[in-house]
Amino acid sequence: MIRTHTAGSLREEHTGQKVTLAGWVARRRDHGGVVFIDLRDASGSAQVVFREEDHAHDLRAEYCVKVVGEVRLRPEGNENPELPTGKIEVVADTVEVLSESAPLPFPIEGNVGVSEEARLKYRYLDVRRQQVAHAMRVRSKATYLANEVMNELGFVYVETPTLTRSTPEGARDFLVPVRLQPGNWYALPQSPQLFKQLLQVAGLERYYQLAKCYRDEDLRADRQPEFTQIDVEMSFVDQEDVIQVGETLIARLWRELAGYELPTPLPRMTYAEAMARYGSDKPDLRFGQELVEMTSYFAGTTFRVFQADYVGAVVMPGGASQTRKELDGWQEWARSRGAKGLAYVLVQEDGTLGGPVAKNLSEEELSGLAAKVGAAPGDAIFFAAGARNAARDLLGAARLEIGRRCGLIDESQWSFLWVVDAPMFEEDGEGGWTAVHHPFTGPKPEWADNFQDHPGEALAYAYDMVCNGMEIGGGSIRIHRAEMQQRVFDVLGISKEEAESKFGFLLEAFKYGPPPHGGIAYGWDRICMLLAGGESIRDVIAFPKTASGFDPLTGAPTPITAGQRKEAGVDATPRKD
Amino acid sequence: MIRTHTAGSLREEHTGQKVTLAGWVARRRDHGGVVFIDLRDASGSAQVVFREEDHAHDLRAEYCVKVVGEVRLRPEGNENPELPTGKIEVVADTVEVLSESAPLPFPIEGNVGVSEEARLKYRYLDVRRQQVAHAMRVRSKATYLANEVMNELGFVYVETPTLTRSTPEGARDFLVPVRLQPGNWYALPQSPQLFKQLLQVAGLERYYQLAKCYRDEDLRADRQPEFTQIDVEMSFVDQEDVIQVGETLIARLWRELAGYELPTPLPRMTYAEAMARYGSDKPDLRFGQELVEMTSYFAGTTFRVFQADYVGAVVMPGGASQTRKELDGWQEWARSRGAKGLAYVLVQEDGTLGGPVAKNLSEEELSGLAAKVGAAPGDAIFFAAGARNAARDLLGAARLEIGRRCGLIDESQWSFLWVVDAPMFEEDGEGGWTAVHHPFTGPKPEWADNFQDHPGEALAYAYDMVCNGMEIGGGSIRIHRAEMQQRVFDVLGISKEEAESKFGFLLEAFKYGPPPHGGIAYGWDRICMLLAGGESIRDVIAFPKTASGFDPLTGAPTPITAGQRKEAGVDATPRKD
Repeated sequence: MIRTHTAGSLREEHTGQKVTLAGWVARRRDHGGVVFIDLRDASGSAQVVFREEDHAHDLRAEYCVKVVGEVRLRPEGNENPELPTGKIEVVADTVEVLSESAPLPFPIEGNVGVSEEARLKYRYLDVRRQQVAHAMRVRSKATYLANEVMNELGFVYVETPTLTRSTPEGARDFLVPVRLQPGNWYALPQSPQLFKQLLQVAGLERYYQLAKCYRDEDLRADRQPEFTQIDVEMSFVDQEDVIQVGETLIARLWRELAGYELPTPLPRMTYAEAMARYGSDKPDLRFGQELVEMTSYFAGTTFRVFQADYVGAVVMPGGASQTRKELDGWQEWARSRGAKGLAYVLVQEDGTLGGPVAKNLSEEELSGLAAKVGAAPGDAIFFAAGARNAARDLLGAARLEIGRRCGLIDESQWSFLWVVDAPMFEEDGEGGWTAVHHPFTGPKPEWADNFQDHPGEALAYAYDMVCNGMEIGGGSIRIHRAEMQQRVFDVLGISKEEAESKFGFLLEAFKYGPPPHGGIAYGWDRICMLLAGGESIRDVIAFPKTASGFDPLTGAPTPITAGQRKEAGVDATPRKD
Repeated sequence: MIRTHTAGSLREEHTGQKVTLAGWVARRRDHGGVVFIDLRDASGSAQVVFREEDHAHDLRAEYCVKVVGEVRLRPEGNENPELPTGKIEVVADTVEVLSESAPLPFPIEGNVGVSEEARLKYRYLDVRRQQVAHAMRVRSKATYLANEVMNELGFVYVETPTLTRSTPEGARDFLVPVRLQPGNWYALPQSPQLFKQLLQVAGLERYYQLAKCYRDEDLRADRQPEFTQIDVEMSFVDQEDVIQVGETLIARLWRELAGYELPTPLPRMTYAEAMARYGSDKPDLRFGQELVEMTSYFAGTTFRVFQADYVGAVVMPGGASQTRKELDGWQEWARSRGAKGLAYVLVQEDGTLGGPVAKNLSEEELSGLAAKVGAAPGDAIFFAAGARNAARDLLGAARLEIGRRCGLIDESQWSFLWVVDAPMFEEDGEGGWTAVHHPFTGPKPEWADNFQDHPGEALAYAYDMVCNGMEIGGGSIRIHRAEMQQRVFDVLGISKEEAESKFGFLLEAFKYGPPPHGGIAYGWDRICMLLAGGESIRDVIAFPKTASGFDPLTGAPTPITAGQRKEAGVDATPRKD
């Protein structure tokens, strides 16, 4: 090593020692002939004193330097109690510039706001900032802990292929032309789902992997074309076993990295309850403002809008004092989510009800309304009416927006729960059914024999882990019997030929004594983001891409040359063997 | 869990207990009304006894079953001391078939030879075989240990992108069209080389990763289009530091998984010595038969073939008794490697020298020959003459072939060493120079100032770890000064424009105080193969591909549809922004 000590490790007990440090010039202060430099390395920083200005003459911000000097106590009154190294300083004898730095595109030190594009283009400078480096280290520790827990629980780490066959999941596959088989293409996997099930047929019983997954989707706010999941699959288990492993893993992570003791077993909520109370399958329980179903309350209403399959309400505390512009803003907000608007009633301070909707309600409807929804004087009541799912979605989103705008969410709190018993199927809008999870998801045991007769009611043996309103893990007990799988395909309208072409190799494997099995996958980027206190998964990805899949650092993706195109066999016609 | 116990964990102390097992029907023996079944699960197997034939009537090989029964001691004389569960058996009360198995394409139990294609097509059955499952578990344990060691040594695990920009390394990149930016392509990385160097510029100081790498190369015998390396990079280090981390890692793996204590510090050999003595930069030291340089011995020879820049020899013990056909076979072997042939002299039992070459040598040359090369009566001496490198390569390969054919290699032995001081450059055959490693490899300190004046002699600050004649790791101290990097580019004939277009973002990063740094990458598939006692890296890959990149299990790669092609933007013209 070029150094004898790391800067951040120096303490009083090193006083009098000759040390060699290596790191970066973080801050520089000149005081009449004497120059102070904060020398930063991965361990922290230490103050270096140059008694002669000449020695430090050439040192500018972010120069990489090696300093030899003696540790001494800082003169009385000059200590910095906020720094672990704040009691000492290093008096430099010699300094060597290991490499110089050009003027920086943005300062490393200090809390200067920098555009995300600049941060990503110069990510290697961004990561020199303490908070960003901290996020990288948290992720590394989390990865280590995850491996430790899974190892302790007897799981086998298996790397599954990332150059594989196009699979039939929801999102689009990235494709890769194969030079050695011109005209043929690999696909990058959206998840190791099929392989992890094959590993259960293979008898490994407990599989896990830190798995890279790929989705060529329209990138929404916080998505990346490549992402990581902790992928888990187990044999001879039911839901309880998979949940227990998950709680052990997550409890360990939060205990060691967030100092939070998970209240295990975590609460569970059915999908039906979550939708009814929170209008979401991933409810944020850090605040109240639950949805109130008003369908029967308005059963006899003459107000056309509320003559609907479902009417629900959510209360905004203090919402009655919103300006006209703010109330119009909610309409805009609702329309941007595909709704017609957001009906509202304002509870005035004197208890009378105002707003355009109130005029359309009967005396009787008005009189009991505030009490029914739990609104107090000064609150606003928002309504959604229509098809049950759509109306609940809108109210659930309004609830979250209320939580944010009214500061109802205690950001220091953790709210974990399992959402269970999701429906197996949902209507595809064309008179058929589609799988809510994937077609290998098993029914709950009580639906094993007759899910095909009640596809709209049948419940899946599935479970999602939710933290602070985000899904951080999801899984299910899978189908392992050909007969049951066939019934699912029948409900989904998947023909034998289609099933064969899409996942024939999995169905073939299931002919050879497949064990009962199930599993789960945890969104690793999101978990690390929560642990690191980040606001976006980009905060815990070393080299993230922008929302359009662009990498400002390398400039990827790029056009390819005609030569590359030819060599990769992009335009070749596949040989028929 | 469906079971109360794993089959392989049952012992005498469970006698009298009621247990529920779940696993696969491995072997079945019928004995007049009583049926014995070996029930196999991931933990091992246990014998299950069915007292009534009817209960076991339907159980065929590889059915997945659940058995409830009582553990009892096997009757005296029926114990199987070779099995951990050999003292007990489970008397079945009830059995439930969890899933049936179709007739198997090959038997799971017993050492039946099966073609590799069948094994890969039905990999989920192949992995049920004890030896194959064992290899998967060894790899998993090795992965865990590697994480443990690197964590203990303070390394930060960072996931680098796998959808990135085409890089200029030797092999070809896999390309990936990007739907959101039609006409633009990502490349899959051949290694995280540039990113791990950027992470040093970023100040993380100690990086590692279990990294997926991709090379669209012509697949030779034991290559895969995707492979894994343990990727390491460190700041403020020199060669000793990187070597020490590597020895700590490898020593731990071999201690815990092979029961072998690595003799650290490992021996080191210069590249020059390895080439001179073994004709290889990855010498297998488990046997002798070193090359003997004969250039000066034959300096005055009249034999045209030996009037060469280099003449060398290697001895084959007992080789004089080879048949004419065998000796011809060596010529064939040499020609298949691109040589003209393999000159030889046979040392007869009476000490006289035979074979076609002997006739061309002088009395004097003949008389001292056997002693000079260390050949005994009955041995053969093989020669190569010509350009030094090519001749040594041939003799090195002949040496390995001799080792194999003569059984000189003790397969139970481990031979580790570092090969250091490789050349920086080699001639590109067109009057120019090419980088032996990659263009960021630094020179040894003593060559720092003048490597550009002696490109043929300059030594790289590079080190390879070799085990049993295989390179299992390789790395170098990198260049971190722009001025030195420019001199390397000058030697390589890389123009400023070319450098800019190929790795402009790394050169840009190097403007901002890059630290001195270096690293290494370990071939993880190969290391796991060695630890698992496999013969091919395919033995330690869950779902490997064939030499042509074909996956017999999934059928990947496949043609894509016109719709997929259109959607992925394969034929789009990139938009100019």
